[in-house]
Amino acid sequence: MTRTLQDLNVTFIREALAHGAEQELVVLLQEQHPADLAEAIEPLTEEEKRRVFQLLNPEQAADVLVELNDLSREEILEETSAARLAEIAEEMESDEAADLLATLSEATQAEVLRRMGREEMKDLAELLRYREDSAGGIMKRELLAVRGDSTVAEAVAAFQQLSHTEDVEDIHNVFVVDAERHLVGVLPIRRLLLVDAATPIHRVMDPNILKVRTDVDQEEVARLFKKYDLLSIPVVDEGDRLVGRITVEDIVDVITEESGEDLLRMGGVDEDDRIFCLPSRSVRKRLPWLTINLATAMLAASVVAIFQDTISQMVTLAVFMPIVAGMGGNAGTQTLTLITRGIAMGELSLTNARRALIKESIVALANGVAIGVFMGLGTYLWKGDWILGSVLGLALIVNMLVAGVVGTIIPVLLKRFGVDPAVASGIIVTTFTDCFGFFFFLGLASLALRFYNL
Amino acid sequence: MTRTLQDLNVTFIREALAHGAEQELVVLLQEQHPADLAEAIEPLTEEEKRRVFQLLNPEQAADVLVELNDLSREEILEETSAARLAEIAEEMESDEAADLLATLSEATQAEVLRRMGREEMKDLAELLRYREDSAGGIMKRELLAVRGDSTVAEAVAAFQQLSHTEDVEDIHNVFVVDAERHLVGVLPIRRLLLVDAATPIHRVMDPNILKVRTDVDQEEVARLFKKYDLLSIPVVDEGDRLVGRITVEDIVDVITEESGEDLLRMGGVDEDDRIFCLPSRSVRKRLPWLTINLATAMLAASVVAIFQDTISQMVTLAVFMPIVAGMGGNAGTQTLTLITRGIAMGELSLTNARRALIKESIVALANGVAIGVFMGLGTYLWKGDWILGSVLGLALIVNMLVAGVVGTIIPVLLKRFGVDPAVASGIIVTTFTDCFGFFFFLGLASLALRFYNL
Repeated sequence: MTRTLQDLNVTFIREALAHGAEQELVVLLQEQHPADLAEAIEPLTEEEKRRVFQLLNPEQAADVLVELNDLSREEILEETSAARLAEIAEEMESDEAADLLATLSEATQAEVLRRMGREEMKDLAELLRYREDSAGGIMKRELLAVRGDSTVAEAVAAFQQLSHTEDVEDIHNVFVVDAERHLVGVLPIRRLLLVDAATPIHRVMDPNILKVRTDVDQEEVARLFKKYDLLSIPVVDEGDRLVGRITVEDIVDVITEESGEDLLRMGGVDEDDRIFCLPSRSVRKRLPWLTINLATAMLAASVVAIFQDTISQMVTLAVFMPIVAGMGGNAGTQTLTLITRGIAMGELSLTNARRALIKESIVALANGVAIGVFMGLGTYLWKGDWILGSVLGLALIVNMLVAGVVGTIIPVLLKRFGVDPAVASGIIVTTFTDCFGFFFFLGLASLALRFYNL
Repeated sequence: MTRTLQDLNVTFIREALAHGAEQELVVLLQEQHPADLAEAIEPLTEEEKRRVFQLLNPEQAADVLVELNDLSREEILEETSAARLAEIAEEMESDEAADLLATLSEATQAEVLRRMGREEMKDLAELLRYREDSAGGIMKRELLAVRGDSTVAEAVAAFQQLSHTEDVEDIHNVFVVDAERHLVGVLPIRRLLLVDAATPIHRVMDPNILKVRTDVDQEEVARLFKKYDLLSIPVVDEGDRLVGRITVEDIVDVITEESGEDLLRMGGVDEDDRIFCLPSRSVRKRLPWLTINLATAMLAASVVAIFQDTISQMVTLAVFMPIVAGMGGNAGTQTLTLITRGIAMGELSLTNARRALIKESIVALANGVAIGVFMGLGTYLWKGDWILGSVLGLALIVNMLVAGVVGTIIPVLLKRFGVDPAVASGIIVTTFTDCFGFFFFLGLASLALRFYNL
């Protein structure tokens, strides 16, 4: 793809700052798309970021701030005065301004609010009341609403009016309300081009309204956008009055954020843990998960402890032990990843779980036989010990079969009982494959040793 | 949220089908949003799904098919005649029709194409040439294009004209082209409401065009949508001629799909592996990953093999061995998950990697000391063996520190050398923590035993 704008790069910015060529830089900065500007700023040092940021007018500063990553934003905001923050917040859409204010200390927040216009301040104070990840927390207050008895021409005039004071780039719908601001209908803005100017709005609006309350979780809002291919959704308060709207641009960010959170959770990381937060916070966030894992590791170790005599008779068992447990863990993780994904995509439910179980068992058995026979034969050829080879091969086959079965059942059961399978499945399945793997391998070896010693 | 439509549920559909009340069902089905209809159909049996699907007219069938999950779609399409498929495909937008045709056998595909209108057939044959995950593969052919010397009134007329033959719900922009269909500008459709009807389009269009070529990867397209908050993007061919467009509705699906693929890859699952595909296919997809894991497990086992004498002197070591390796693996996974995510979010690069390394080392050391001291003391109190306790505690501390360091460095290095950190980091880091954990724990124990035996 191409953009016909002049290229901006880190080296150029550095040079300009170093040689005091601020005026030339300002000219160049003004030509850029805020997203490109943000990208060019990210690699700079803290000091350089702040100096570039100071060169931007409030409108540009507002647009760039929205595009920066959390880390750069924090670095810049630390040194920005309340007066300038108020100017910047006034240029933002209400949802972005609320996000900005939410990152400030309470004292700074109050001071910024005091310096803003009365109307903006009221909107912001309202938005700051909602949970960050609720519909109220991601909605914006600016919207286009008309009464049902208005004509199409009046709706167009209202839209033109709005375009003088607000950015209307993301106005996708006209909301139709009654005297109490209850929603009675909705109309895509482009429909205004297709209907006669004299038509009353209530004749052309769609009375089937999809709406969300301020307290609905953002993940549920995203699900509605995906399901119904929405461009925007109206948000109502407890009294069913229109208070804001959420647009698809916001939802794209929510989807990206939520999928990232799933990845983090699978890795045992809390979503509030950050690369550059204080170490003490990271420790506090990670230690609980490590402690749970320690408990499961001790469970597995206690299985090994049962067979200490067997191991002392044949120390080679300690060498192969981790292979049996590890391969079970890997096979189990593959199965549960596929099953968890299938549940999330709505392809798997309790009704067809049996079919999935049969298929996964077949796959697990086939993979188990492939790996088990290979390792069993290999060990026999290497150690010349057919008993060790058979025990290892058989343990691998059985543990990988168990992994397939458990990897299918656990996520389905967790889902059934309302637990997020993405978080808990992994640790349960690997605990199972560890404990069972050790038990079966060492138990089989202990039986074989008795037979061997006859 | 609420929808004022009548509720449809599985039980009702089953009853209606069982009692031959097809007529009543047809009436109810017609009132539903296609997404709701698809949701109601999913839990039915294959046979029931097909019967309900037969009751839908081609337009409804087209809308529902797009909403169904892959599995249900395959089940239904298996038994649908080429004649009906052609009727359905004609009702779809070109990108959806192309996706539908791509799932059919070549013979059926050719027959369906033969039965379609000439215009639709040409569009589809064109779309089927592109890779499924390229801009060409996800674009649609239907769009609104006018010449630069047209007036705003003429553009509105062109839009009204288009609305007679096509679904214009997702027409977000007017594309401005020259005589050779080269793009010269773009204009949001809602801008037509804000400018004077007699203005020539080239006076109000934006000449800075963001566009993609047909061969650009869909992930890159999604990145542009996120970065520039786009609603639609024009697609051009090698000759820079306008051939189609991609809308934000399609991109929401791409983002969902791509984030799912990241999850799958992290779990060692190929994206073409399916819950209900043939077992032989799943085995073929999973065995390579298991084999790589087997190789790393054997590497770890060979480290244990070095210390067989030590283990035979003190079998308890075999009991605690998996704890040291496992805790290193868990701590390493936490770090690399956070680092990988930071790289994907653009918060971490080579320039600030050193700062991340210092922070992660501090966190790893703190967590290691917590876990190590706890386990060391516990083991001393339990076994009354202060040497075993010290060796275990020290090994845990050092292995968890190594996990933090390796978990930070590996993803950064992989990214630096152009390898996707999400895929390869996990296996490299756990191989490291396994091998190092065994080596350090058993090595330390072997030194301690020598000292102990003096």
